[in-house]
Amino acid sequence: MSQSETVVPSTTAIPTLPVVLTMGDPAGIGPEIIALALRERPQLLRQVVVVGDVPTLQRAMACTPGAGMPVVPIASLASFERVAPGSMAVVQACALNRPVQLGRVSAEAGQAAADCIRFAAQAALNGQARAVVTAPIHKEALAAAGVAHPGHTEFLQALAAEHLGVSVTELPVRMMLSCPGLRTVLVSIHVSLRQALDAVTRAQVLQTLRITAAHFRGCNMPAARIAVAGLNPHAGEGGLFGREEIEIIAPAVAEARHEGIRASGPHAPDTVFMRARQGEFDVVLAMYHDQGLIPVKLLGLEHGVNTTLGLPFVRTSPDHGTAFDLAGTGLASPASLLAAIDAALDMRA
Amino acid sequence: MSQSETVVPSTTAIPTLPVVLTMGDPAGIGPEIIALALRERPQLLRQVVVVGDVPTLQRAMACTPGAGMPVVPIASLASFERVAPGSMAVVQACALNRPVQLGRVSAEAGQAAADCIRFAAQAALNGQARAVVTAPIHKEALAAAGVAHPGHTEFLQALAAEHLGVSVTELPVRMMLSCPGLRTVLVSIHVSLRQALDAVTRAQVLQTLRITAAHFRGCNMPAARIAVAGLNPHAGEGGLFGREEIEIIAPAVAEARHEGIRASGPHAPDTVFMRARQGEFDVVLAMYHDQGLIPVKLLGLEHGVNTTLGLPFVRTSPDHGTAFDLAGTGLASPASLLAAIDAALDMRA
Repeated sequence: MSQSETVVPSTTAIPTLPVVLTMGDPAGIGPEIIALALRERPQLLRQVVVVGDVPTLQRAMACTPGAGMPVVPIASLASFERVAPGSMAVVQACALNRPVQLGRVSAEAGQAAADCIRFAAQAALNGQARAVVTAPIHKEALAAAGVAHPGHTEFLQALAAEHLGVSVTELPVRMMLSCPGLRTVLVSIHVSLRQALDAVTRAQVLQTLRITAAHFRGCNMPAARIAVAGLNPHAGEGGLFGREEIEIIAPAVAEARHEGIRASGPHAPDTVFMRARQGEFDVVLAMYHDQGLIPVKLLGLEHGVNTTLGLPFVRTSPDHGTAFDLAGTGLASPASLLAAIDAALDMRA
Repeated sequence: MSQSETVVPSTTAIPTLPVVLTMGDPAGIGPEIIALALRERPQLLRQVVVVGDVPTLQRAMACTPGAGMPVVPIASLASFERVAPGSMAVVQACALNRPVQLGRVSAEAGQAAADCIRFAAQAALNGQARAVVTAPIHKEALAAAGVAHPGHTEFLQALAAEHLGVSVTELPVRMMLSCPGLRTVLVSIHVSLRQALDAVTRAQVLQTLRITAAHFRGCNMPAARIAVAGLNPHAGEGGLFGREEIEIIAPAVAEARHEGIRASGPHAPDTVFMRARQGEFDVVLAMYHDQGLIPVKLLGLEHGVNTTLGLPFVRTSPDHGTAFDLAGTGLASPASLLAAIDAALDMRA
């Protein structure tokens, strides 16, 4: 299922494929954190191509402090290695008449962001890019542009499913959040807590385990220790505070172990993240959004990385939004984006 | 409602009342972390009386490394100031024929632990103690001794209600967990997550806000900033992922503010704890057990303190259990117990 395996003839060729970096919503901090990241780590210029709007990226470069670097348009990804050293290579993947007003939701900005995502995904699906790193988009701008997907994850899932000729339900994906010392994969994301409880089924938990295990195999961590969190306080305390652990989660863990997946649990939710951070586990399966996101945000919002598992290509992003209030000030931190690029360089789908 | 206000004639008399420290289950680490704590901080001996079993505490002292301190029985709390400096004052509040076997659940141990709790609560309720700090008990041992309460909180609530001549529902209490940089008060504790969702009512949230505000007034923090967490991801994102924030939590916050309580929210659960830790809030109201406990355990299990709010006296405890596997080794850390004693010395009910 790995695109790099089916297209690239040998592993020695992989490093020549670039990581593509979408600019995100052009009214947000995406373009300037890209400029800041590549100025802070110019060695990345040999591995990264930005997918965006050249004048917008030039404006972003200008708002960062000190001397900028050249922003060089390239006609296709194939030519990125011929760009002069120290320059930012950009594929013009969207059509903007002029850079949009900063800090404002607009259909134009949403459309540009969507065009870049589509270009980047196609590049990865066609074996022209080794990974996709996405800068933040704005949900309302995307909706204003008529894009039906609420976020990157669903959008990329739909593009990949279309490419593979399958339905989106046949290409289940999961969100993984990471920060230094902790990784967590979520069984469900943007639904109410009541709906999230209903999503904790044996099939969903098992599917999450399989997707997680496949990801770590691709990262050369086939023996990754996967801790499965319980749903209830103290993981139900033997059925005293809820029976989901006994009836749903434990059987899913058993089935995964039977398949050779190194899973354990269900563990008490209030201590499993602490234990993972202390090195006992490589990743924690969280039963709902906040169970996993509270610890990750607490430990490392500045260096948080969002990874989509289950896609046929690597996709990471910083764990923050468009920060319209900061756009154009040059004060946004590129730390989370740099962590996302580093993570993408370390992974295989 | 404050015991110290109704009994002690002037605030200058308060320092002469001791903090009473229950030994917990005699088969667990309670007795030895008391010995370790008082050896590490001998100045506390002027403020603390241990409520327990003298031979058990002598054994605990013997298993700590280096030279111990004298364990001195006293007939009543009133005489604690006459104990020789550098000695541990102990009220023999239970009847054990001999110290129980370490690391084993027994009705005898549960009965001894319960007797100590009862003595300490009565002392505080009668104005003979300024606060109660409880070492860990074992739920099964308590049950084996025929004690109907699952833990300290419910037991102390029942004793206080009986003393005041009210029902337990007329004396609502809440659990507050604290660690360096973060405090959280829980709307519900030991129930399944499904039941916890049902416990998120306007009345419960408002009651939690009132109890929390009263606690901070007693701690000389009348303007404590109370952040109320949402229940759903992103606090429901305007009703998109659940409506409890709109229909239940926001109205409760509004009513509390109308009463002069400095409450805000509902805030997105995944970032509110991070914001509190960064100094934006003094305490976070968590809607369910793990929402509050995941961040506290992650930040500071070693220094975690459990405080019962709503009682007519101050009660704190370390945020860990009996650790039967460590009992008698002298290796348990007294850090959390010391933090609980320090917290009790800083509070008024």
